Amino acid sequence: MYGRSYYCGEVPIEAIGEKVKLKGWVQKRRDLGGLIFIDLRDRSGVVQVVFSPEVSNEALTIAEGIRNEFVVDIEGTVIAREEGTINENIKTGQIEVKAEKIVILNAAKTPPFSISDKTEVSEDVRLKYRYLDLRRTAMYETFKMRHDVTKTIRNYLDGEGFLDVETPILTKSTPEGARDYLVPSRVHPGEFYALPQSPQIFKQLLMVGGFERYYQIARCFRDEDLRADRQPEFTQIDIETSFMSQEDIIAMMEEMMATVMTEVKGLKVETPFPRISYDDAMNRYGSDKPDTRFEMEIVDLSELVKDSGFKVFSGAVQSGGQVKAINVKGGAEQYSRKDIDALTEFVKVYGAKGLAWLKVEEGELKGPIAKFFDENEQQSLTQLLDGAAGDLFLFVADKKSVVADSLGALRLKLAKELKLIDETKFNFLWVTDWPLLEYDEGEGRYFAAHHPFTMPVREDLDLLDSDPGKVRAQAYDLVLNGYELGGGSLRIFEREVQEKMFKVLGFSEEEAREQFGFLLEAFEYGTPPHGGIALGLDRMVMLFAGRTNLRDTIAFPKTASASDLLTDAPGEVSQSQLNDLSLSLNVEK
Amino acid sequence: MYGRSYYCGEVPIEAIGEKVKLKGWVQKRRDLGGLIFIDLRDRSGVVQVVFSPEVSNEALTIAEGIRNEFVVDIEGTVIAREEGTINENIKTGQIEVKAEKIVILNAAKTPPFSISDKTEVSEDVRLKYRYLDLRRTAMYETFKMRHDVTKTIRNYLDGEGFLDVETPILTKSTPEGARDYLVPSRVHPGEFYALPQSPQIFKQLLMVGGFERYYQIARCFRDEDLRADRQPEFTQIDIETSFMSQEDIIAMMEEMMATVMTEVKGLKVETPFPRISYDDAMNRYGSDKPDTRFEMEIVDLSELVKDSGFKVFSGAVQSGGQVKAINVKGGAEQYSRKDIDALTEFVKVYGAKGLAWLKVEEGELKGPIAKFFDENEQQSLTQLLDGAAGDLFLFVADKKSVVADSLGALRLKLAKELKLIDETKFNFLWVTDWPLLEYDEGEGRYFAAHHPFTMPVREDLDLLDSDPGKVRAQAYDLVLNGYELGGGSLRIFEREVQEKMFKVLGFSEEEAREQFGFLLEAFEYGTPPHGGIALGLDRMVMLFAGRTNLRDTIAFPKTASASDLLTDAPGEVSQSQLNDLSLSLNVEK
Repeated sequence: MYGRSYYCGEVPIEAIGEKVKLKGWVQKRRDLGGLIFIDLRDRSGVVQVVFSPEVSNEALTIAEGIRNEFVVDIEGTVIAREEGTINENIKTGQIEVKAEKIVILNAAKTPPFSISDKTEVSEDVRLKYRYLDLRRTAMYETFKMRHDVTKTIRNYLDGEGFLDVETPILTKSTPEGARDYLVPSRVHPGEFYALPQSPQIFKQLLMVGGFERYYQIARCFRDEDLRADRQPEFTQIDIETSFMSQEDIIAMMEEMMATVMTEVKGLKVETPFPRISYDDAMNRYGSDKPDTRFEMEIVDLSELVKDSGFKVFSGAVQSGGQVKAINVKGGAEQYSRKDIDALTEFVKVYGAKGLAWLKVEEGELKGPIAKFFDENEQQSLTQLLDGAAGDLFLFVADKKSVVADSLGALRLKLAKELKLIDETKFNFLWVTDWPLLEYDEGEGRYFAAHHPFTMPVREDLDLLDSDPGKVRAQAYDLVLNGYELGGGSLRIFEREVQEKMFKVLGFSEEEAREQFGFLLEAFEYGTPPHGGIALGLDRMVMLFAGRTNLRDTIAFPKTASASDLLTDAPGEVSQSQLNDLSLSLNVEK
Repeated sequence: MYGRSYYCGEVPIEAIGEKVKLKGWVQKRRDLGGLIFIDLRDRSGVVQVVFSPEVSNEALTIAEGIRNEFVVDIEGTVIAREEGTINENIKTGQIEVKAEKIVILNAAKTPPFSISDKTEVSEDVRLKYRYLDLRRTAMYETFKMRHDVTKTIRNYLDGEGFLDVETPILTKSTPEGARDYLVPSRVHPGEFYALPQSPQIFKQLLMVGGFERYYQIARCFRDEDLRADRQPEFTQIDIETSFMSQEDIIAMMEEMMATVMTEVKGLKVETPFPRISYDDAMNRYGSDKPDTRFEMEIVDLSELVKDSGFKVFSGAVQSGGQVKAINVKGGAEQYSRKDIDALTEFVKVYGAKGLAWLKVEEGELKGPIAKFFDENEQQSLTQLLDGAAGDLFLFVADKKSVVADSLGALRLKLAKELKLIDETKFNFLWVTDWPLLEYDEGEGRYFAAHHPFTMPVREDLDLLDSDPGKVRAQAYDLVLNGYELGGGSLRIFEREVQEKMFKVLGFSEEEAREQFGFLLEAFEYGTPPHGGIALGLDRMVMLFAGRTNLRDTIAFPKTASASDLLTDAPGEVSQSQLNDLSLSLNVEK
């Protein structure tokens, strides 16, 4: 323990009578009947310390001068608290320490907010004084959990023969890397490194290098327009293996995650995890990362309504779109017309032109569009949607992607509003059978749905030339509670396939060689079949810790505009630094 | 094992009779009497596989087509090798696998160098084809050792209650950071992040934040003019604790390193490690990181020769310099005049004007300067230098720093030439009692000997104003076999002391606030006493693996000009990327 007898929060009842040395922060001071009580806090928790004139006038005098957040060194004797003063809310509530000596190690100004989990202060202030924010017990516990998650994963992977290998942070920038952070080189004027968006290429090269099983808790960087749940630097659990099939990798990852759940959350999760195909996920949940903690699945009614008298529905189907609906069980009373108007505005954000609705009453459907459906149609609708009296049906009729996006988002919104989600559940889910490519109408070309190194399904290889959109990928995403935890795939390991892939993605032969020539060449020297996965650590910890803000899982996070409010990064640099790098700024400073 | 029965190098003798599946690379193929033998290699080692017409003509035919480095999948039966064909040099030398089936998973061109630890190829070629270089057993073993070192350290620190916390890579650049790598910000035009030279500030802020025990295997960056043993990115084992004394930290690190030695090298090292003060190290070894695996200590003769008739010696002492010497035991015969001339050239690199020498013969000293010393002086010299017949004394007379540098370097050079170093020894050594500041004559100001956050010895605090060069630091370096493994210190944790330190280092009050205001402010909110250490992982692995090149411990290292020969980084970027960053290049491309 190096100079202390116990951590404050762990002084045991067995220590009664023992002389102890404690160190920590003053959480609170109370003066009462000539005595001074302080709650002494360290990262483990709190213990009560009492100063009294009978024990030491000197210590009492010093204690009179202390304020919250002072750092002190205490010597005293552990005693049992008197009956009636026992605090059941804390672990050390049965005892207190009679202080014989106190040394003030450092004083403290009054902090800008109180060090308490109940503190209500803006996140900007918390970030500026991050060192105070981190003193709060809930924050410490999140980072302890993060430590435990990585420890468990490292131990698991070590046991499976994985090697922890560090890959470079100063890497090559490629014209594809529109969101690369760049690092100018002083030694090579006019040239730049790029910070890696992932160690993808390097981990594949380690497989070419015969390492067979690699992992790294790897820092990655993406200069994106930031959203609430993204950070310019983030951490992924990066894994790659040789000679393993998709099934092997999935089984291993399930075992790993089950181990983490047991070690960190004390929960047993069933393996194998459920699986859903990408198409199914999109059809039934309107999302490629479905939250399966509640039902309210999306039902396809296109076939039923394609000749309906309600032209909005039949027209949508006849022009190649879809009509789909969700059933809000028991929602008929809860959602007034005005509420439904608000939901209509909500789905418009996702491109829907409107939101049709029907309420189920005994034996019939009610609502402005009810008149378009005869009794048979109403029965069929009710049956398909598993309707019962009191339910509310919400319909979107539009092209496929709009239907999926809007009903997918609506489903989540309603589940939250109606508290349908069991927050104690941890629903892992594999999403499989991904398309290899996605066509971008705007750019008029295909993009890789995952990344350009994903292996197509063998029997679809010929389609790469004739019908690239139909090619399936050997890819698998791991979803937890509606969040993408990570994505993996088998990788291309043959030069010809990789060249074909680059071609489909619009690379000229020259561009492919210039940017990835070293990889294409590597594939010619005996590259084993390989594949892997990358799991987002920040998000994993967020979900395990029951938090909703990614920043609470990162010790020194950046804001939505990629600033560090504590150190004030980024900042200006000197002219001589710029000269060293042969750079000029095109901005007025 | 997911689809394989054993790793190749681990097929046990007990498997005889067993049907097995193996995967790996063809290390070598031999055709012999209608049979084909291959050495099948994976990362664990090699096993012999035999193809014969009696077992499978089909497999034999396929085997005829395979070449070195082909990737194959084998099914067969383990059999005992015939007497006379047993190979004692490999673990699987008692058995072989009779192949029933072979599938070629990938072909291979002839590699540019053979995958063998004996390969003699230029390092540039090895770096360009790093993925082939990594297939060599010795390389894999080094990275396995690196994995084991970090695993052992992580487990040790976890057991001591340390939390693994990630600190930012995109940090603030400071004008002091002349060797910062900069990262332009797209969101904040004209502003830059800096890559951290170490997580120093952040780990101290974690102590302010009450984390008490932090560690991180942290990537650090320094844009230096590169030397052979430096890399632009390197990894340090970064440790910080609160409430621990220098003695506590040293004791804990000794226990940690002893654990690593036991786990990784199977060696027991004695604790506590020896200690030497900085002054002693410089005086006796001419180095602040002495190699104590051999003696040949530097002896101060200034007092003895200050009035000598040999004006080179007496003049040096009288003008404030020193005369020191080393005794090359038994070196009189080995070093001819010509050899000594070469040593003279060697010490000139370190600023010495010359190298005087004397050889010890029975009862007298021989050599061109012998005549300047009478019998008494010769006896005293011989006694001080512990001379015996056949020894060679080498003298440098100059100012203190030149004497230390040149004799320190000469001592190492001679020990290598004379093979005085026991390469099986691991001599850990603490260097303590460092000066806080070093005066730079060129710049005319003090610099921090370690860094500006190092705590001065309490009783020297007043000297900060009156005689800064005299102030001692609470700092400790860990040295192993003449290499600095790392440096640590207690840190300043009071605002006034830190402000005084900045002032001594030439910061104006405004500069100090602008650059480190957040830290100075943090110190006011109850900062605990804290300290720590940072150990160089790359160098540690290099020494444990018995290597001499830091690049052999890094999977994808950079050359001395900070280039990655494999991916060709750094490289040019597109004009649109530059525009996004509001930058122009001041170079002709």
